[in-house]
Amino acid sequence: MDYEKLSAHVDSKRQEYMDQLATIIRIESISADPARNKDMRRCAEAIASMMREAGIENVRLFETEGNPLVYGEYIHAAGKPTILIYGHYDVQPVDPIPEWNTPPFEPTVRGDDLFCRGASDDKGQLFIHLKAFETYKLLFGEPPVNLKFIFEGEEEIGSIHLEPFIRSHKDLLKADTVLISDTAMYGRDMPTICYGLRGLAYVELTVENATIDLHSGSFGGAVENPVHVLADIISGFHDRYGRVTIPHFYDDVAEVSDGERMEIARLPYSDEEFLRQSGAVVPCGEFGWSTNERLWIRPTLDVNGIYGGFTGEGAKTIIPSKATAKISMRLVPNQKSARILDLFEEHVKEIAPPTVKVFVKKMHSGEPALTPIDHPAVKATSSALEQVFGKKPFYTREGGSIPEVTTFQDALGAPVILLGFGLPDENSHAPNEHLYLRHFFDGIKTVAVLYEKMASIR
Amino acid sequence: MDYEKLSAHVDSKRQEYMDQLATIIRIESISADPARNKDMRRCAEAIASMMREAGIENVRLFETEGNPLVYGEYIHAAGKPTILIYGHYDVQPVDPIPEWNTPPFEPTVRGDDLFCRGASDDKGQLFIHLKAFETYKLLFGEPPVNLKFIFEGEEEIGSIHLEPFIRSHKDLLKADTVLISDTAMYGRDMPTICYGLRGLAYVELTVENATIDLHSGSFGGAVENPVHVLADIISGFHDRYGRVTIPHFYDDVAEVSDGERMEIARLPYSDEEFLRQSGAVVPCGEFGWSTNERLWIRPTLDVNGIYGGFTGEGAKTIIPSKATAKISMRLVPNQKSARILDLFEEHVKEIAPPTVKVFVKKMHSGEPALTPIDHPAVKATSSALEQVFGKKPFYTREGGSIPEVTTFQDALGAPVILLGFGLPDENSHAPNEHLYLRHFFDGIKTVAVLYEKMASIR
Repeated sequence: MDYEKLSAHVDSKRQEYMDQLATIIRIESISADPARNKDMRRCAEAIASMMREAGIENVRLFETEGNPLVYGEYIHAAGKPTILIYGHYDVQPVDPIPEWNTPPFEPTVRGDDLFCRGASDDKGQLFIHLKAFETYKLLFGEPPVNLKFIFEGEEEIGSIHLEPFIRSHKDLLKADTVLISDTAMYGRDMPTICYGLRGLAYVELTVENATIDLHSGSFGGAVENPVHVLADIISGFHDRYGRVTIPHFYDDVAEVSDGERMEIARLPYSDEEFLRQSGAVVPCGEFGWSTNERLWIRPTLDVNGIYGGFTGEGAKTIIPSKATAKISMRLVPNQKSARILDLFEEHVKEIAPPTVKVFVKKMHSGEPALTPIDHPAVKATSSALEQVFGKKPFYTREGGSIPEVTTFQDALGAPVILLGFGLPDENSHAPNEHLYLRHFFDGIKTVAVLYEKMASIR
Repeated sequence: MDYEKLSAHVDSKRQEYMDQLATIIRIESISADPARNKDMRRCAEAIASMMREAGIENVRLFETEGNPLVYGEYIHAAGKPTILIYGHYDVQPVDPIPEWNTPPFEPTVRGDDLFCRGASDDKGQLFIHLKAFETYKLLFGEPPVNLKFIFEGEEEIGSIHLEPFIRSHKDLLKADTVLISDTAMYGRDMPTICYGLRGLAYVELTVENATIDLHSGSFGGAVENPVHVLADIISGFHDRYGRVTIPHFYDDVAEVSDGERMEIARLPYSDEEFLRQSGAVVPCGEFGWSTNERLWIRPTLDVNGIYGGFTGEGAKTIIPSKATAKISMRLVPNQKSARILDLFEEHVKEIAPPTVKVFVKKMHSGEPALTPIDHPAVKATSSALEQVFGKKPFYTREGGSIPEVTTFQDALGAPVILLGFGLPDENSHAPNEHLYLRHFFDGIKTVAVLYEKMASIR
């Protein structure tokens, strides 16, 4: 491959690519919000159009009971490996809106970054694959691998319909490798292959006493306050060493070898940089583990949101009738989300006092995953990254969840490569999400190069 | 006085009174909401008009830096006592709106009750005094006492401008007795004089870590979660006996005599009825005290509202950047709100971990109060109630706060009589606030009778 030609071509198309990306990130495809159903479909259709324009074939929407899946393929390399590329076109909610410097769905370039909900997670990364295909075909003709594309619209709400789709379309999706660009690089100019993901178990915990809010003058002191009970429960979820207190929570956690812990310790890390990225006061967490270990190889329990009683302007003197916490547990191999959800519910029912009613709503979940790092497809990816970035990639894990990774591995029997072009500080689930544009363009180059590196993996 | 004439007249005017009351409770005078400034003024002016129509003189609005005060007087009984009547035209917020059976500001009669925000607390009770005056004058001519009326629009947000107004208008407001109808009767057909009120100290406690919400995949387990810290703090506010753990919190609590505790114990009370009124699962609270004691003579600390992180539909996987609790403490004689607010702040700052920033915002406060129950004005009130209701009244305390009671006592040197016509289950700070109409009409009669009973108190 004439890499200089590829690189020069991509560089010449920067404005055009950004303009095209803008048309899909403008669409308010928030899957958590039932009111956005039409936007979800509009986004799926816009992506399908782009795929067709890029030359991808058999592009179509598969309907689900939720948001449609977008599929396309290009299968002309007989006897060569097949790569299945996955991405998602749904995005996280955008509140609190006042904290955005520019409107959440108005693509805005400031400095080296493109700001918009979905710019990094995951429409920008999905778009890399469309442009890589288009570019390769334009410059070098037929790709030396077969390609399949599957893009879903429910990643941020647990990929509920993707999993059954994968299981019922194994032939359609059959591939030698699954390539996912939905993760972050370890840092700027640090090409990264991610070999492990945490799983997720998400619940809503509600503590209820009265059916209506009560005047705290008339009832305060003589009725249970559900916020106090919820606080007691939350406060009890961790011991003083930051360990989760739910019985049997750690039973299935796979031991991590000293060797792997040493690999993690070798990665560049500084508290200063971590605090810059997070904006946190100090690093903290489970006693006895480093920051990266806490993020990658240790399970967690975090309250993601809490509400109850009066939350408006000013002061209202009520005893809330109920209070709710949204709680997620990040899981590591070999924890199983279903078991963890059961343990959570059992524990909460066990410790709830008789003064209240307690409800546990199991929301969604995804299993933790590990990818073998000595697979030829991983080595091919490493080689492509090295060519574009000029350095060997880092091997990391990721603290987040991509529930379908496990499903792809299980259902297709194919290794999943996590080739992310995001960055850890791109606010992918927070206000002012953005995408570092140089990695976006280098991502397009990397994926085009990767087609050739992948051609010989079997 | 020809009581039968009074009673028959009031009974004949029921629909007319309800229609008139409807015009003022329709006005959305929520003082906690800065967006309702115009409604506040509109409500004040509507009440002033009604006062003029009733024959009250020198009616005018006194401007404050907040909502206007409405004043009026009728001073024609030379050498006779002067009664100052206080009420408030502001109301509590109305959320959660979906829990209202009919729109919050749409007066609706169902059964024996009138449903509307403000029907009971306090526009309905304020209105009783306007109609009592109008009726007395119409039927019996000049009242045998002098009357002054002062209605404020900031009771639900701590009466911030009333207190300085009272202190700077002592001559204008000078009276022998202050009469307040803003409390509840002990139950249906149980005429009640309230001789004690709890005070209030209200704060907003915010725990903050990062400046933005963080992706719980990227950061979960390695940064402090402000909701967890807030839960720890709230959980620690009470010991296992339901006592508030803030150091020195109980230092100034006046001892209550065994005699008074026996009086409280003699009042009709059943757990069943208490649970029916509150909708709570079980009665509970501080160990060693009865329900009425917990409500009237014991101080409390309650979270009135809590919020942080993602509180919308569905699931969002973030570590909240901050979390806030609105917290109020109900105070009893001789606790001082300023000292309690200081103790709260000191305690929270003392126990806050170094992983977060903690902010305490002192919101508003009111002092606890006690009224001597052997004062002639209390006896006159007792006699008026007995005439209208046909039974001797009950003497109670109230768990709620009317901050200005202390100010009236201190600044005017006058006893304050709490003559409430509300009921404990009228949802005065909750959805579906309502007013029991029979007490409303009996209230008008009682106040008209009271003019004559009060004529001889000095």
